[in-house]
Amino acid sequence: MSTTTPADPPAAPPAATSAPSSPGTPPPSSLDPEVAARLRRTSDGLVAAVVQEHGTGDVLMLAWMDDEALAATLTTGRATYWSRSRGELWRKGDTSGHVQHVRSVALDCDGDALLVRVDQVGPACHTGTRTCFDGRDLGALDVATADGEPGDHP
Amino acid sequence: MSTTTPADPPAAPPAATSAPSSPGTPPPSSLDPEVAARLRRTSDGLVAAVVQEHGTGDVLMLAWMDDEALAATLTTGRATYWSRSRGELWRKGDTSGHVQHVRSVALDCDGDALLVRVDQVGPACHTGTRTCFDGRDLGALDVATADGEPGDHP
Repeated sequence: MSTTTPADPPAAPPAATSAPSSPGTPPPSSLDPEVAARLRRTSDGLVAAVVQEHGTGDVLMLAWMDDEALAATLTTGRATYWSRSRGELWRKGDTSGHVQHVRSVALDCDGDALLVRVDQVGPACHTGTRTCFDGRDLGALDVATADGEPGDHP
Repeated sequence: MSTTTPADPPAAPPAATSAPSSPGTPPPSSLDPEVAARLRRTSDGLVAAVVQEHGTGDVLMLAWMDDEALAATLTTGRATYWSRSRGELWRKGDTSGHVQHVRSVALDCDGDALLVRVDQVGPACHTGTRTCFDGRDLGALDVATADGEPGDHP
């Protein structure tokens, strides 16, 4: 089958009367409508994505997805997010080379969080650490190993 | 000293000139000011908390913390969250018995996500599943095991 379709008319722009994006009514995307219907998005139209390394179980980072990012993540094998700082789709690794190959994606019980299991190439964090949490412990009281009572936290 | 102070006037309402809570200026809490200064909160004053089981590495759930919930989590050994649906602090397990004993807490590179490692008593999910993601797979194309090209996703 030919991969080019010459003389196709350009896609029509969205009608001027179409509703602006608002909570609960995301813009049309290539996401499976059955999956889209299960999402409970923030007011920005996003769902949190917990990213876990498949081989080690380590939590690598927390990112955000809009419907289009989730559709790309589910169908292309490459973890794709919505960059809140840049305001654009962000296919992880396109700039850094630190690609994430998707192993599985699950949605949580109330539809507002995704668990994305990946094979990570290189460090996951833009600072160069392996995960975004490495070396950033807040020193919680560990009740399993501490002798102290609550309040004894140094 | 007497614990009653009869004839005290009722507490004055907040002065009209005091600033309402807004992003970056959370209400005073018992959280270590050095930690508080590192948080990058949502417009609701919250930070996402990824909750991971210490023993298995399984990601159990995603929850949210305000400064007070984080302070309690760091100092009491019991994972404590902000319930967005109920609008109140929520010490996990107080109603269900499904307590989370805190092993460690780390903050991510940009201050908007926490990784809370816990020992979980019973199922973590209010639906009764062990994690909030169990049995909720979205069927992503798995490039490591699939023969197909992107687009072959069933």
